[in-house]
Amino acid sequence: MDKTKFSRPLSLKNVQITDTFWKKEMELVRTEVIPYQWRALNDEVEGAAPSFCMHNFEAAGRQNEERREKGAEFKEPVYTFRGFETLPEDPEHLEDKFYGFVFQDSDFYKWIEAVGYSLSQHPDERLEAIADGAIDIVCKAQQENGYLDTYYILNGKDKIFTNLKDNHELYCLGHLLEGAVAYYDATGKDKLLNAAKRYADYVDSCFGKEEGKCKGYPGHEIAEMALVRLYETTGEDKYLNLARFFIDERGTRPYYYDNEHPEEVKKKPDGLRYEYNQAHKPVREQDEAVGHSVRAVYLYSGMADVARLTEDESLLKACEVLWNNMTRKKMYITGGIGATHIGEAFSFNYDLPNDTAYAETCASIGLVFMARRMLEMTPDAKYADVMERALYNGVLSGMALDGKSFFYVNPLEVLPEACHKDERKFHVKPVRQKWFGCACCPPNIARLLSSISTYAYTENKDTLFVHLYIGGVIKKQLDGQDIEIKVTSEFPWDGTVKVEMPATEKPFTLAFRIPRWAKNYQVKGIDGAKTEEKAGYLYVTKQWTGTETVELEFPMEVRLVQTNPKVRENIGKIAVVRGPIVYCLEEADNGADLHLVRLSPKAVCEVKAEKIAGEPVKTVLTEGLRQKNSENPEEEELYTIAEPDTEVPADLKFIPYYVWANRGENEMMVWVKKA
Amino acid sequence: MDKTKFSRPLSLKNVQITDTFWKKEMELVRTEVIPYQWRALNDEVEGAAPSFCMHNFEAAGRQNEERREKGAEFKEPVYTFRGFETLPEDPEHLEDKFYGFVFQDSDFYKWIEAVGYSLSQHPDERLEAIADGAIDIVCKAQQENGYLDTYYILNGKDKIFTNLKDNHELYCLGHLLEGAVAYYDATGKDKLLNAAKRYADYVDSCFGKEEGKCKGYPGHEIAEMALVRLYETTGEDKYLNLARFFIDERGTRPYYYDNEHPEEVKKKPDGLRYEYNQAHKPVREQDEAVGHSVRAVYLYSGMADVARLTEDESLLKACEVLWNNMTRKKMYITGGIGATHIGEAFSFNYDLPNDTAYAETCASIGLVFMARRMLEMTPDAKYADVMERALYNGVLSGMALDGKSFFYVNPLEVLPEACHKDERKFHVKPVRQKWFGCACCPPNIARLLSSISTYAYTENKDTLFVHLYIGGVIKKQLDGQDIEIKVTSEFPWDGTVKVEMPATEKPFTLAFRIPRWAKNYQVKGIDGAKTEEKAGYLYVTKQWTGTETVELEFPMEVRLVQTNPKVRENIGKIAVVRGPIVYCLEEADNGADLHLVRLSPKAVCEVKAEKIAGEPVKTVLTEGLRQKNSENPEEEELYTIAEPDTEVPADLKFIPYYVWANRGENEMMVWVKKA
Repeated sequence: MDKTKFSRPLSLKNVQITDTFWKKEMELVRTEVIPYQWRALNDEVEGAAPSFCMHNFEAAGRQNEERREKGAEFKEPVYTFRGFETLPEDPEHLEDKFYGFVFQDSDFYKWIEAVGYSLSQHPDERLEAIADGAIDIVCKAQQENGYLDTYYILNGKDKIFTNLKDNHELYCLGHLLEGAVAYYDATGKDKLLNAAKRYADYVDSCFGKEEGKCKGYPGHEIAEMALVRLYETTGEDKYLNLARFFIDERGTRPYYYDNEHPEEVKKKPDGLRYEYNQAHKPVREQDEAVGHSVRAVYLYSGMADVARLTEDESLLKACEVLWNNMTRKKMYITGGIGATHIGEAFSFNYDLPNDTAYAETCASIGLVFMARRMLEMTPDAKYADVMERALYNGVLSGMALDGKSFFYVNPLEVLPEACHKDERKFHVKPVRQKWFGCACCPPNIARLLSSISTYAYTENKDTLFVHLYIGGVIKKQLDGQDIEIKVTSEFPWDGTVKVEMPATEKPFTLAFRIPRWAKNYQVKGIDGAKTEEKAGYLYVTKQWTGTETVELEFPMEVRLVQTNPKVRENIGKIAVVRGPIVYCLEEADNGADLHLVRLSPKAVCEVKAEKIAGEPVKTVLTEGLRQKNSENPEEEELYTIAEPDTEVPADLKFIPYYVWANRGENEMMVWVKKA
Repeated sequence: MDKTKFSRPLSLKNVQITDTFWKKEMELVRTEVIPYQWRALNDEVEGAAPSFCMHNFEAAGRQNEERREKGAEFKEPVYTFRGFETLPEDPEHLEDKFYGFVFQDSDFYKWIEAVGYSLSQHPDERLEAIADGAIDIVCKAQQENGYLDTYYILNGKDKIFTNLKDNHELYCLGHLLEGAVAYYDATGKDKLLNAAKRYADYVDSCFGKEEGKCKGYPGHEIAEMALVRLYETTGEDKYLNLARFFIDERGTRPYYYDNEHPEEVKKKPDGLRYEYNQAHKPVREQDEAVGHSVRAVYLYSGMADVARLTEDESLLKACEVLWNNMTRKKMYITGGIGATHIGEAFSFNYDLPNDTAYAETCASIGLVFMARRMLEMTPDAKYADVMERALYNGVLSGMALDGKSFFYVNPLEVLPEACHKDERKFHVKPVRQKWFGCACCPPNIARLLSSISTYAYTENKDTLFVHLYIGGVIKKQLDGQDIEIKVTSEFPWDGTVKVEMPATEKPFTLAFRIPRWAKNYQVKGIDGAKTEEKAGYLYVTKQWTGTETVELEFPMEVRLVQTNPKVRENIGKIAVVRGPIVYCLEEADNGADLHLVRLSPKAVCEVKAEKIAGEPVKTVLTEGLRQKNSENPEEEELYTIAEPDTEVPADLKFIPYYVWANRGENEMMVWVKKA
């Protein structure tokens, strides 16, 4: 490992996104999602499940206040611990108790993270004032010793850190750190950062290798990468060490969770127990992505962070093995991961059912997290290809075009009747939902989209890596000199990218990712440069004169793709893809009974610019075949002698997957039978 | 309705089954299943879930004894009621408590029913002595007032008939009646019959239209058809009336079950509530088969019985509508019904997934029950076709070739890895199981197979209906004269059937079902007879001289069949069928990865007599195509540009579906992709 070759994302402040496509998404987050979520955190969204998030902080703050006033007399209340989710008896009058899911605090932390990113791109005094006020409320809930988790605070604290596997204390810590750093980076205000550090310090005093400290680790990972972030912001080694401790300790025997959950010991043997939490084996021995998929990619992201900072070859190797397993055996074409709703988990290798898929939005987001971290160490286009696949498809599909409703689950085939009538598919919603009680996806989309530039670009001393073609103005330090690079891009609808370079005093390298789907790309404006193609990146090095505009052209032909034949579900099926965009058939354009459609792999496709539900996109028009349906199904036998198919030509319109379900409830299908 | 045209099954004693195929199955039941089940009822099968069935009767008997001894002093014990299943703390030392499922009594009743049938075909003093002893034990448990359900007896009886929806009291009654009648018919012994009548009389005193009586009805149907059977054995109208009451009351508003389960009222609106129990609408308004599939077909069978006896046109019409819905929209090609394991229930119309199918063995058995009852009123081959389909496929597949293990679930496609690793398919077992705690299927198979002749033949005054071609010697009364008809059949492996007729003094009609799959049948030996073809039956009428042998030849060509295109799961797929037998591919013959196989609907098929796991069958050999699998899946991308299929010719061997999984755990597939 050569740490000097590693690259890092640029500060958000140093990239102004100008990209038509992504700017619109970011504006949606800024103008719709963030205000909507603030109302949701305060239980002010009619018809949506209440969050109770701010209520819990306020109640904990009041309790804290009371204790301070009463001083030594105060006795910590001891409540009976509640279940995973607690709802008030009378929703109109909340008591000073904890309500909602055990991880409800994280709703605010994700929100404040998105707010931070948004402010760094788009200052907004009013929003900042709201955020500052909210931070005051949150900080009031913090205990003297730094502890900060309202579920336990409001339930008497006597059981803190006794159910790490299920109760999300360290998960909430992680989101607090992420949110606090983001808000500090954007505003320079350190109130929340200091609270976060205090909580992290308290956790550090409780957990670790040292004798007497707890040997547990997070049941839902994220603290690992968040602690790294806190380390990178503060420079304090203890945070990195704690992250590494959590990672190294995970899955070692005897299992820590066996102490917390002795009843689990009988259920499954060593080596299989705690797969759900990726705690079945030491992380360096894990070679298959298993268990809860969001947890998994959050862990892997933390592992990559720690591998980079500690130059840990074995940890990097584990990340690579897990990455390959995930992306070659367990990933939908949309970048969705987690094939089963049972445990929101990975299924076995090559099991990728389309209609019962889980493919949680948050899991695709976590896949993006991991991909960027792998790229920081290894600029291999395979990571960026997956990142792009997930972003333009499985992540974006999570949010409606108006930013007002969300998918938790992102199936690749939907028959609304099945979602309503077949309990096996009740997790699949045929239309996006307003807000979930367990609302991880909407705020996760918000924090990802608001920080999209950190995934598009990474830098090291003399190189700018362009992983995603997202237009923006990039400020970069080069030997003490500020340079500004302007990128414009027609992605995802056309493959033209222009990069206007300033003059540089020394040679400087632009490293352009060559998408796997665009082998025959063209590049202009690089006269006199040294070029090299390596691992899917084109490195262009020269001392720039300030007059060059590098022009890249990635041909966006319609591709008809197939799946590795080991995937049973997709055998004999093809999907339509163009550039980074995965397409689908929707009933709105193609009529019902999409299963009757077939498409030749040699079909001639026309690309058309049009609006779908107001969104300017490019659709793919082609001709397929459609089998005639039975005429008198009431009278017909189910089983008859096989006859030649009576198929008729059918005009087909494919739309980008991410825009589906924006025109009401209807059928959708990505993988179409091959004619 | 013309009651004089109705036909009825012959007494078991009047048909001696000689059929090679079915005789073997009956012998398996006699020599393997019945003794095995007796051991199971007594918890003597090692490695199988205990039944506790005889224990419960014994414990209830002891309690009864004690009460009688103590007379007026005795106080009924009041226990806390237990859950749906109760297991002992120490399995070695059972207390005088109730253990097992709430419906555990029925295990014995099903067993005694099978014993009765078996004894009528094959007298067996030892078995009869065991049965008599067991009946003594059961009768000792009966209460003074006739009540007999060990769950409630052992739990204090204070809550009898308070949870009709879930607690199976009337279900156990139904099985008791069926068992008691069968044993009485076979042996003439009426001890159990009298106990059954006493329990039925007690139920009759509690339930009915009359003021003050309970307006409830069985949560799991079967009492309806069982009461009809008791009526037909005893001639006492009250039993028929009670059956009719249960049927007429079912699903009327306000719902009876709302009283028992007020918490249900909020969950679902009127018209949808209690679909699981077919109690969502009055039965005559039901036009879609819904809910728990075994419950459904048991209800429909009872409805058909009552329709026949009361000449109730509206009830018959409801049966017809439900039959058509079930068999045209909700039945697997194997005669399996109930497409989802969630609630062991019907899914929506045309939803027939192969790999997550439920298709419980008992549901196919219930479909056979209903079919025979419909045939009694309407000799239309459509009923017998389905009966045959279910018997030779979805029912027989329920039992291993050695009679020692059983399938509860009968999927049409199995990948063992998925059964082990994918929780969505945990209900699908890749190999048959020894005995289930909830052991409805093994005894149900036993009672059906032991009485198979009652499904093959029905009669009225001057006609013998041959619904199924099962060889046997049939004794029939014709105008006071005993005649004997001898049927021999090569079914299911060849279509030759011979019927040797005795001399008759008057014209006598043989009504032969013409299977839908055998349009071009031939018939010989009917010179001078009047023949008529109607609704799939060939009626042959003459005054027979005693020299005629009617010879039927139903050509058994291999048929490649398709499904109504509304069934999404099977679009572009074909199945192999020959005569009544549905075929499948199994890994043992064709290698793994059966999803890579395709078959042309024009494939030339060879039929070969051979043994599969010792069972003489006819296999179907043909050539299909097999797609090459990826060579380096570890290194391969999941998604690549679609290429022409690289398929190679592949020899395929199809085996009868019912023999699958007799050679260890392996892949299986009924519906094969069409080339």
